[in-house]
Amino acid sequence: MQGKKPKESYTIMNELVLPNDTNTLNNLMGGRLLHWMDIASAISAQKHCNRIVVTASVDNVSFKAPIKLGDVISIEAKVSRAFTTSVEVRMDVWAENIPSGTRVKSNEAYYTFVALDSDGNTVKVPELIPETPEEILLFEGALRRRQLRLILGGKMSPDDATELKALFFAAQQ
Amino acid sequence: MQGKKPKESYTIMNELVLPNDTNTLNNLMGGRLLHWMDIASAISAQKHCNRIVVTASVDNVSFKAPIKLGDVISIEAKVSRAFTTSVEVRMDVWAENIPSGTRVKSNEAYYTFVALDSDGNTVKVPELIPETPEEILLFEGALRRRQLRLILGGKMSPDDATELKALFFAAQQ
Amino acid sequence: MQGKKPKESYTIMNELVLPNDTNTLNNLMGGRLLHWMDIASAISAQKHCNRIVVTASVDNVSFKAPIKLGDVISIEAKVSRAFTTSVEVRMDVWAENIPSGTRVKSNEAYYTFVALDSDGNTVKVPELIPETPEEILLFEGALRRRQLRLILGGKMSPDDATELKALFFAAQQ
Amino acid sequence: MQGKKPKESYTIMNELVLPNDTNTLNNLMGGRLLHWMDIASAISAQKHCNRIVVTASVDNVSFKAPIKLGDVISIEAKVSRAFTTSVEVRMDVWAENIPSGTRVKSNEAYYTFVALDSDGNTVKVPELIPETPEEILLFEGALRRRQLRLILGGKMSPDDATELKALFFAAQQ
Amino acid sequence: MQGKKPKESYTIMNELVLPNDTNTLNNLMGGRLLHWMDIASAISAQKHCNRIVVTASVDNVSFKAPIKLGDVISIEAKVSRAFTTSVEVRMDVWAENIPSGTRVKSNEAYYTFVALDSDGNTVKVPELIPETPEEILLFEGALRRRQLRLILGGKMSPDDATELKALFFAAQQ
Amino acid sequence: MQGKKPKESYTIMNELVLPNDTNTLNNLMGGRLLHWMDIASAISAQKHCNRIVVTASVDNVSFKAPIKLGDVISIEAKVSRAFTTSVEVRMDVWAENIPSGTRVKSNEAYYTFVALDSDGNTVKVPELIPETPEEILLFEGALRRRQLRLILGGKMSPDDATELKALFFAAQQ
Repeated sequence: MQGKKPKESYTIMNELVLPNDTNTLNNLMGGRLLHWMDIASAISAQKHCNRIVVTASVDNVSFKAPIKLGDVISIEAKVSRAFTTSVEVRMDVWAENIPSGTRVKSNEAYYTFVALDSDGNTVKVPELIPETPEEILLFEGALRRRQLRLILGGKMSPDDATELKALFFAAQQ
Repeated sequence: MQGKKPKESYTIMNELVLPNDTNTLNNLMGGRLLHWMDIASAISAQKHCNRIVVTASVDNVSFKAPIKLGDVISIEAKVSRAFTTSVEVRMDVWAENIPSGTRVKSNEAYYTFVALDSDGNTVKVPELIPETPEEILLFEGALRRRQLRLILGGKMSPDDATELKALFFAAQQ
Repeated sequence: MQGKKPKESYTIMNELVLPNDTNTLNNLMGGRLLHWMDIASAISAQKHCNRIVVTASVDNVSFKAPIKLGDVISIEAKVSRAFTTSVEVRMDVWAENIPSGTRVKSNEAYYTFVALDSDGNTVKVPELIPETPEEILLFEGALRRRQLRLILGGKMSPDDATELKALFFAAQQ
Repeated sequence: MQGKKPKESYTIMNELVLPNDTNTLNNLMGGRLLHWMDIASAISAQKHCNRIVVTASVDNVSFKAPIKLGDVISIEAKVSRAFTTSVEVRMDVWAENIPSGTRVKSNEAYYTFVALDSDGNTVKVPELIPETPEEILLFEGALRRRQLRLILGGKMSPDDATELKALFFAAQQ
Repeated sequence: MQGKKPKESYTIMNELVLPNDTNTLNNLMGGRLLHWMDIASAISAQKHCNRIVVTASVDNVSFKAPIKLGDVISIEAKVSRAFTTSVEVRMDVWAENIPSGTRVKSNEAYYTFVALDSDGNTVKVPELIPETPEEILLFEGALRRRQLRLILGGKMSPDDATELKALFFAAQQ
Repeated sequence: MQGKKPKESYTIMNELVLPNDTNTLNNLMGGRLLHWMDIASAISAQKHCNRIVVTASVDNVSFKAPIKLGDVISIEAKVSRAFTTSVEVRMDVWAENIPSGTRVKSNEAYYTFVALDSDGNTVKVPELIPETPEEILLFEGALRRRQLRLILGGKMSPDDATELKALFFAAQQ
């Protein structure tokens, strides 16, 4: 199985914020955005794996500024690292109010997907080969994020999270 | 402003997994569940704050087992801690296949909401007064989760996250 | 097949009234509420029968007060009586405007479901064993409601509806 | 205000049963049909009243045969009687499986609507002038159905329901 | 296979314009109307063919006047001509604002459908036998519209479009 | 008002074909695709005009091959020409079955939008300045397509459609 580059899984999704996506202040509800991000990143993960994929985890997501009714949401996704049977997808999300010409970054996020065959069993996925400096940074950070997920999910002891320690406690050492 | 107990914001939401919520393996898509969880926890946050609330962040969420078409999703939410103008809501999510009598825990999660007045400005929220031992544990853990959110959002240096250090590196000290 | 108690089928559903659920006066449309009530009561009926269930009938439902955009609908459902292959589910529906702190009863209703096996044939369901005085009252009233359904559906002559007569014409006798 | 004929409020709605409208047996869920019926009858009530209308009540509805995925639902609605500020709408509902050429009556039902002005206050509606023998029968039956609604809603004592008594207990007298 | 008359495929669909169907000016979005028109005309095509049908093409559609939130859309569809394995369906679309009593024609359109058996292969469809003068005109125009579709789809050379030439360039000859 | 290049309005939308988007053969319904295309092209038109836009017309659209449940639809849109107060948007639509690695062109289409100010009045839009040879070809063809729209809409006599004649009847001259 041949490795793949991030650009091969690059996916853009644009969505228009409609009334039913908003609360009574006419702001986009966070859950609707999380749903769109899941579809965008699943398409990106599928492109890398050429497999059906299922969401395994969602990293901490923060919503910075309110997004308004009528705004256009733009989600850019690409695989940031492949593990044995799973991939991490990085997304950058913007909200654009086109008539007023404003475009603000709403958030960055990582969703992880597991690849499945048609019987629902996990299958191996191609390696990711990062190319640009930014892709290499994302690739390297993926190990730390994976350790954080495993600790938060109770599957790894903090003591074994060597990559994560280096990130969080550089000042301490 | 008088403090409130967790049971005052206790909210249950049940949803039926319908075809459009599933992928081609007939499994619930993660994004749909994140969307339902946002609505359930927003209702819970509203009950505590008696205010319009907007999603500020979603903590790391892991999906353990696949949830199938026709399953009933049961989301239980209650406020786990209030900060000045925001609340953290804890959710427990189960998936139940009623004809076969199985009920499995799908995940636990924390969503954070900011309270707004009708002009969209942040407003103070009532304090949370935990009662049961489990509620006290959730209340105490909220500080650590908040520090993790601030670090991941680039708003706090790891060195200042004293609560978080105690959680992650107890063994080290 | 062992009997079951009402609390074993107790189901709560909370829904947020979103723009698409409302008419041009920003009031919840009755049909949307009937739809949610069908899902909530079907989940309750499933819990009692441990079977797939299909809606057989809906009793007279009156909508008292208008429900507004942004309100939280809270539906509480439990089985009120089991017949041979069907169950009657009783619902209490509230509408809550959380920021203003109002909570009003919208309506009470009964939906009836038939239990089916996986080939779509009707199957026997467990008996219902009411416990509290209120559950016993609902259980007893179920016979009258069933007779009313049968008369309205043209399947029973009014003369044979002995239970119903007792309700409607007590004063006459 | 001039009276109107039933044919002036005659409304037909056709809907295709799509996957999300069905349960795991591929049968149309009752709640979805109740929702469509609400929209069809609201359009009919609007045509009679030339006003915004809101659902006031739904009479007993029975679902006879299962309706399948891919069937076409055909709802025919027309006003059967006008009261001071409300109208009763009668519906006939068919399910048609076009490739196999079958068309079965699913149910008949009555929904009642109140007419509102743009401030949400009730307003007078035009009288209904039935023309055909069938329309006259529906018009006459409307009084009995109204009494049944009032009794079930606790707004009329059974003793005062003179029209209803005549229907239910003809044999008794 | 016996021919069929246009009235045998006559289909009416009424839809209410809800918030999610509109843009930020509260006008119905064109794409939503195209979607409803597809369902209405597919039902009509099914009635003629007694087969599953799939959309093959949509002719030029113009939207004349803005349609507002709360309007009732009324779509009337009937088959205008049958070809070997396909049918052309003609639609007339009105938008009605019932409280203000206005009803305007929104557009006329033609959708074409191919008939399929249950394996997805194309199958022959009954001939259309137009009856009224208007139906005969629509029937005759169908050949020209078909040639225009074939030219625009690159499947016919303009030179061979004898019917279309007669329409477009009558003045030239 | 400064002219804009096609790349400034370039918009990509990816959508996953879900159960409710399909017919009983599990093929994407044409109307659903027309709806997505309307949203994608409206976003593109907005980017060019920096205005609210409404759909004015849809050109002839043909659907070549069936698109299946689970496929990813990819719509690429960019403005092909601006007129005084309207723009024509060209779309290329692909359907990709990622697990099997197939990607087929579904169709090409043109939607036209009118730009409006916040009171709903038409407003002037920036000129389009095509850059690549392909963009110049699309720009030049736009006049012919506009004439065809005007003829089909009854707003231009075929005799005056000089551009269109050149396209359709080159062989004749």
